[in-house]
Amino acid sequence: MRSTSTALFTDRYELTMLDAAMKAGTHDRPCVFEAFARRLPGARRYGIVAGTGRLLQEIADFRFTDAELGWLSDENVVSKATLEWLADYRFTGSIHGYREGEVYFPGSPLLVVEGSFAEAVILETLILSVLNYDSAVATAASRMVSAANGRPLAEMGSRRVGEHSAVAAARAAYIAGFAATSNLEAGRSWGVPTMGTAAHSFTLLHDTEEQAFRAQVDALGPETTLLVDTYDVHTAVALAVKVAGPKLGAVRIDSGDLPELVAAVRRQLDDLGATETKITVTNDLDEFTIAALRAVPVDSYGVGTSVVTGSGSPASGMVYKLVSRQDADGEWVAVAKTSVGKASPGGRKFPLRVLDASGTAVEERIHVESTEADGRALHVALMTDGVTGAAHLGAAGTKAARDHREAAVAELPAEAFRLSRGDPALPTVFA
Amino acid sequence: MRSTSTALFTDRYELTMLDAAMKAGTHDRPCVFEAFARRLPGARRYGIVAGTGRLLQEIADFRFTDAELGWLSDENVVSKATLEWLADYRFTGSIHGYREGEVYFPGSPLLVVEGSFAEAVILETLILSVLNYDSAVATAASRMVSAANGRPLAEMGSRRVGEHSAVAAARAAYIAGFAATSNLEAGRSWGVPTMGTAAHSFTLLHDTEEQAFRAQVDALGPETTLLVDTYDVHTAVALAVKVAGPKLGAVRIDSGDLPELVAAVRRQLDDLGATETKITVTNDLDEFTIAALRAVPVDSYGVGTSVVTGSGSPASGMVYKLVSRQDADGEWVAVAKTSVGKASPGGRKFPLRVLDASGTAVEERIHVESTEADGRALHVALMTDGVTGAAHLGAAGTKAARDHREAAVAELPAEAFRLSRGDPALPTVFA
Repeated sequence: MRSTSTALFTDRYELTMLDAAMKAGTHDRPCVFEAFARRLPGARRYGIVAGTGRLLQEIADFRFTDAELGWLSDENVVSKATLEWLADYRFTGSIHGYREGEVYFPGSPLLVVEGSFAEAVILETLILSVLNYDSAVATAASRMVSAANGRPLAEMGSRRVGEHSAVAAARAAYIAGFAATSNLEAGRSWGVPTMGTAAHSFTLLHDTEEQAFRAQVDALGPETTLLVDTYDVHTAVALAVKVAGPKLGAVRIDSGDLPELVAAVRRQLDDLGATETKITVTNDLDEFTIAALRAVPVDSYGVGTSVVTGSGSPASGMVYKLVSRQDADGEWVAVAKTSVGKASPGGRKFPLRVLDASGTAVEERIHVESTEADGRALHVALMTDGVTGAAHLGAAGTKAARDHREAAVAELPAEAFRLSRGDPALPTVFA
Repeated sequence: MRSTSTALFTDRYELTMLDAAMKAGTHDRPCVFEAFARRLPGARRYGIVAGTGRLLQEIADFRFTDAELGWLSDENVVSKATLEWLADYRFTGSIHGYREGEVYFPGSPLLVVEGSFAEAVILETLILSVLNYDSAVATAASRMVSAANGRPLAEMGSRRVGEHSAVAAARAAYIAGFAATSNLEAGRSWGVPTMGTAAHSFTLLHDTEEQAFRAQVDALGPETTLLVDTYDVHTAVALAVKVAGPKLGAVRIDSGDLPELVAAVRRQLDDLGATETKITVTNDLDEFTIAALRAVPVDSYGVGTSVVTGSGSPASGMVYKLVSRQDADGEWVAVAKTSVGKASPGGRKFPLRVLDASGTAVEERIHVESTEADGRALHVALMTDGVTGAAHLGAAGTKAARDHREAAVAELPAEAFRLSRGDPALPTVFA
């Protein structure tokens, strides 16, 4: 990345629509856009909102510097008048939305963007890129966390997804309850705890497995995690305890028939006196294999491909729609397309989660053009007149999102935690 | 992104392995690492290599500045000696590999990285992130290009994938034969042609559909593409031709039962005298729906989610393995792990594509530790002693990759173009 501007993470049509609206004099009409999903990814029971803290930072960085303007001019993307407008652009409107880490359902108005058409339309691509990917990861990760039933999970999928998305995925998985990531940039940028073991190449570099284990223990101490499946697992486990002693932190198994193998390794470690040594497994896990290992003495999981690719649903299907705008007389008009199979209600939404007397969520209630407060209000102010709420940013915002996800998931009824495909755990009701 | 260094797009274990190897004195052993895939994503018939040009740039930017070193020091990731080594790091080894745009098969050694263990191991995560994602997109996109049978395709999926991956996806789809992208950053960074139409919000902004069409035609000329499914399609088509005249560039249809609707719109346009006006469709297309539209008078396709998410296979499953290294006496030793289900041949590979007398590819032949030349040699020099081959970089490298993909795909036998799941079109033979 040679520029820190995010302004060209944008579909060309956003800028040509702006250009046409400026020529027609309609670009200044006050508008309300909303981001929502028509369904949950993978016919899951609930979704988790993620990406908001990243997005707010990227909206602040959405500026057209000389580098962007020069290229747009060279390519004749928009007129000179529009280039001049873009040169001064910064978003000065307001954004309300679901708190990062919040549970969502089909139709939940995750983000409500208020501003002129011009200001709000050109953020469409960036908003959807961030929310669609990060929420897909968090939604998948949250199921893995439930399936792990209290055992810690580490996100290790950086190598299976684009290098920047890897950072976003590590952050989203952490928000969804993962304990740590292998990704160093996620540690630096977002305060996600980082962890790591060793690769097979480290063992293969050395003349013997013993030499490799000794090198690792010498550098990282006996509390390290030794990878024991480069050659024969049981030989390696014996060697690992011999080299590190019974205080060895953990062994990692990355292949083989896990239920049987893990049980055998547990017995072997116990027989060697390494009763505190943990077992971590990392072999192409997803929520289903994690659930299947519940009765097996695994201590922690490392999850790669499945979490960073949303476990079969890599995009959450969120859309960004104009739902209300003023006409030439300054009157607000609720608007919606009527395209076959893609219709949605117009008008600004005010969402609530309705809880029963025991505190269990029973309904996603969405008021249209009405602020009635018969449930837990789901919208918070994310940006006000162009100023970002600081609480949502950086490592502190990421940690707050993680805490909020835990609280929001705790409200869900038991059926929300089924791993099978099915209906959303709550009905969405437009009131 | 606040730093232009790519050095922390890295799993923590790469640096702790380096730390341990430095302490053991094994970090300087000359090594050969190879990147390859054990199988093709989605049981497809062939894969397309993409990401190489991006990767070479990112390897050049893989430098530990004070910002990275300070964070690594604060977090105690590695020892002081290792931090000092990282401060001077730049890759000085050599990389051979498949040309970007090349066809690949299971076991194809896509990249061969030669350098000290220390130099080569810390690039693992970055190399795999880039190749795994970009090749997944190119592999899916190449099938869509074949399915479209000569009709142009535009990549429009930026909003369905992380904002940086969107740029990589646009580039990879272009290499695989797509004609254009909606993504402006891909235009600026990689010279991919950009295009766009308009969104439903543009129509909804205006008091009437006619006002919206007129605004767009006034700004962009009659050769623009008008979106005709915000309300009733046939009403909108009539209006579009009324506003733009029979020279209207195209209409876009984003919903509905496409085969029937497109045929009806074609008849309507012809009846209105707009016989040159094209029809573009964009409704959740993938290689299968594109193939199903062959007999329908569509002129071009816009593809979103499916191409940027690898159409069901968002990661190509590539791995980076140590295959050969020197021992303490300077002797080369071929190495390989023996993990259950994950074994692969050790030793440096020299791949060839064997063609029959008619020029059709019949075998992926991989010589191990032998440079016999009984086919089209697949490796080219990508970096030599730390210096990148300029031909692979930037817009020119991207265009060259697109041209190479076209030539490489033309060698494939007919069975390579089947869309069904199945065996690779060529057998991989280790010779």
